[in-house]
Amino acid sequence: MSFAHRHLLGIEPLSPGDITAILDLAETYVDLNRCAEKHSDVLAGLTQINMFFENSTRTQASFELAGKRLGADVMNMAMQTSSVKKGETLIDTALTLNAMHPDLLVVRHPQSGAVDLLAQKVNCAVLNAGDGRHEHPTQALLDALTIRRAKGRLHRLSVAICGDIAHSRVARSNLLLLGKMENRIRLIGPPTLMPSQISEFGVEVFDDMAEGLADVDVVMMLRLQRERMDGGFIPSEREYYHRYGLDAEKLALAKPDAIVMHPGPMNRGVEIDGTLADDINRSVIQEQVEMGVAVRMAAMELLARNLRAAAA
Amino acid sequence: MSFAHRHLLGIEPLSPGDITAILDLAETYVDLNRCAEKHSDVLAGLTQINMFFENSTRTQASFELAGKRLGADVMNMAMQTSSVKKGETLIDTALTLNAMHPDLLVVRHPQSGAVDLLAQKVNCAVLNAGDGRHEHPTQALLDALTIRRAKGRLHRLSVAICGDIAHSRVARSNLLLLGKMENRIRLIGPPTLMPSQISEFGVEVFDDMAEGLADVDVVMMLRLQRERMDGGFIPSEREYYHRYGLDAEKLALAKPDAIVMHPGPMNRGVEIDGTLADDINRSVIQEQVEMGVAVRMAAMELLARNLRAAAA
Amino acid sequence: MSFAHRHLLGIEPLSPGDITAILDLAETYVDLNRCAEKHSDVLAGLTQINMFFENSTRTQASFELAGKRLGADVMNMAMQTSSVKKGETLIDTALTLNAMHPDLLVVRHPQSGAVDLLAQKVNCAVLNAGDGRHEHPTQALLDALTIRRAKGRLHRLSVAICGDIAHSRVARSNLLLLGKMENRIRLIGPPTLMPSQISEFGVEVFDDMAEGLADVDVVMMLRLQRERMDGGFIPSEREYYHRYGLDAEKLALAKPDAIVMHPGPMNRGVEIDGTLADDINRSVIQEQVEMGVAVRMAAMELLARNLRAAAA
Repeated sequence: MSFAHRHLLGIEPLSPGDITAILDLAETYVDLNRCAEKHSDVLAGLTQINMFFENSTRTQASFELAGKRLGADVMNMAMQTSSVKKGETLIDTALTLNAMHPDLLVVRHPQSGAVDLLAQKVNCAVLNAGDGRHEHPTQALLDALTIRRAKGRLHRLSVAICGDIAHSRVARSNLLLLGKMENRIRLIGPPTLMPSQISEFGVEVFDDMAEGLADVDVVMMLRLQRERMDGGFIPSEREYYHRYGLDAEKLALAKPDAIVMHPGPMNRGVEIDGTLADDINRSVIQEQVEMGVAVRMAAMELLARNLRAAAA
Repeated sequence: MSFAHRHLLGIEPLSPGDITAILDLAETYVDLNRCAEKHSDVLAGLTQINMFFENSTRTQASFELAGKRLGADVMNMAMQTSSVKKGETLIDTALTLNAMHPDLLVVRHPQSGAVDLLAQKVNCAVLNAGDGRHEHPTQALLDALTIRRAKGRLHRLSVAICGDIAHSRVARSNLLLLGKMENRIRLIGPPTLMPSQISEFGVEVFDDMAEGLADVDVVMMLRLQRERMDGGFIPSEREYYHRYGLDAEKLALAKPDAIVMHPGPMNRGVEIDGTLADDINRSVIQEQVEMGVAVRMAAMELLARNLRAAAA
Repeated sequence: MSFAHRHLLGIEPLSPGDITAILDLAETYVDLNRCAEKHSDVLAGLTQINMFFENSTRTQASFELAGKRLGADVMNMAMQTSSVKKGETLIDTALTLNAMHPDLLVVRHPQSGAVDLLAQKVNCAVLNAGDGRHEHPTQALLDALTIRRAKGRLHRLSVAICGDIAHSRVARSNLLLLGKMENRIRLIGPPTLMPSQISEFGVEVFDDMAEGLADVDVVMMLRLQRERMDGGFIPSEREYYHRYGLDAEKLALAKPDAIVMHPGPMNRGVEIDGTLADDINRSVIQEQVEMGVAVRMAAMELLARNLRAAAA
């Protein structure tokens, strides 16, 4: 297997081979997690620290379970953003933790680039669990695994990413991953929620759902990130749902077997119709959560292997 | 052993045989917990998630220790009630957790019935750690074990439950359990803190402690649930203690060997005299806490056995 | 080895032999923590509860990792100081926890003496993780280990403790420990931040850094405890740094190989110059954190041994 990285900071540095290596290993953990006894000793003796400078119940839970099921000693640290205003202090925090000899450090931070900065200061493997508007690599990997399992492949698919693209690190990491795997990507959303520079990604942009969804294989809805819309245009929920919310009628324009995705937590009736979200023939939203634990187990195992190889 | 349930949602669905099965197994864990090394692998490989929508330091600690001592991978999730106002969202939370494949889900929720609803949506075993004014089955079971150990039996006893009955799920679960085991139950408290429909339980009701405590074997005090008294009568603490607080004088009316119980945390000088609470010849309040861990270990083991049998 | 205590409540009751026993055992854990696999089963089967009535991310993390790496079942309890205003309630909390049969209870509390009081009420071993202005024994022990490793010995050294002595339990525990090991101690700081009774410790007091630092082997800076300065003199940060902050110029007055210490978290530019804090030729601040985990592992192992011996 080709995975030779020390950290998992983003999708950007990964090759298609790296991505495949993670997804293939994750498949074995999908099976393990479905067993009655779902525990291994792959990370036994290692210390995993989850350091979340931003609350995220589900992502932290997913990493915590992943580590515990692999036998790591797992510790959660709830960091107050208020006490970490200065970049200086973030570094001091990193150095302090580093002195406790963690092996795997899972970090979420509200500022883009903060996790990369931190990774330069520590000796352990760092996993980015979301930094500002920058990257959220394990989310893109779990989305990829979900798509690959549903569609039988992860290339030459037509994928629509819909909604609040501008504020979304999920969209950014997915764009990078799906691009590397040679898929056709369409971004659909109001121009005010579209990033200013998108030409770099080689994607098609639509502000009309009917046009954008035509014949796609995958419809990936995004969460409205109101908390990141500082001063800009905020659409009313009613108007937003009317134009950009996914319902059965709009979905009918996609391929008949198109799947529906959402990173959660969902605003039902805003981004997506509740009935459609629960339709197990079309929605893979719960499977995304399941894949999340498996992908994180795989990523941590690969990084731990490299740590051990480096130490030997 | 007869215990054949998938969940532990309340005392209501349990038979006397179920109750005895849990208490008998719990006895072995009382012994284990008193050993120097208090750890087993009964739940090894299983994932336990504690999801508390209401703070409860002691109940959560008791479940957490129970799971860790049995070797489960245990994860706590502090859920903000504010973000879970809509029943819809509770279900989404449940479905999300379910997709992570927990085996045992321990849930406390401020709304009566919420835990039952949640149990219908998941594949794992659900343990009710208290829902609104409805049920708190492990509290009733730990009280039962405490009584059985102190009195040598759990039937044909005369038990007084005293204080704020109306707002108490503890009272409700205890009424159900003690009734199933054929005990004589008396409720004592101000009429304003008595539930409107109590005839269904076949109990005697008193608003005078002297009358109600006459010749009882067990005196079970309740916590004043001020936080659940919305708009209704709230007695002054001084007046309440004078009329309904337990002290040595009132206790003298009960049987000479009557035991004193309280689910904690106590309001000393409101519901109970502090000296009496600490009198180890009469008070079994600390033993209740000890039995709590043992009963929860037993309940989780029995549910896990059924999970494994269902999977096999 | 001579360590025969039931609790670790402070440095005061320890003999030089006790201190050496802890530090010698800690050395083995320094080595373990630097291994790829850093896990032992020394505390397997035991229950450790961390009960922090005062927030302390780093101290709690250090104890938590120490316990997990030694195989204990570790539980954190975040206690709200607000709900524990009455001493009475602290005791009730202690008795409740005690009934759950913990083996090791790690306690931090804002009131001096609260941890000693609590230790009298429980059957387990209690470790003081800081109580008011009283003691913080594991901090003094980790400082001692850091000094011993850097200087090759822990006696006949000249140590300057600088800054906010009056509010510092760290200073107090260090004074006790360094005194027991026959070192020469100097206290440097503004008279308003000096304790009223210091003659008991047999130390020299300076209010001028240039004088106080002359020829010392160790410079131990303290954190300004603004939160504990109720009503008294609070210096401006700028003025404080000018007079008492450690920089290269002031450090030049100490011995050429003098080391620089700080218990963290640092106020860079207030107590210490940031560049100096990061200078790995002089600063041992990160090593202090590393020693912290090792010293806590050693202290818990020694207490656990005594627990087992008492039970046998």
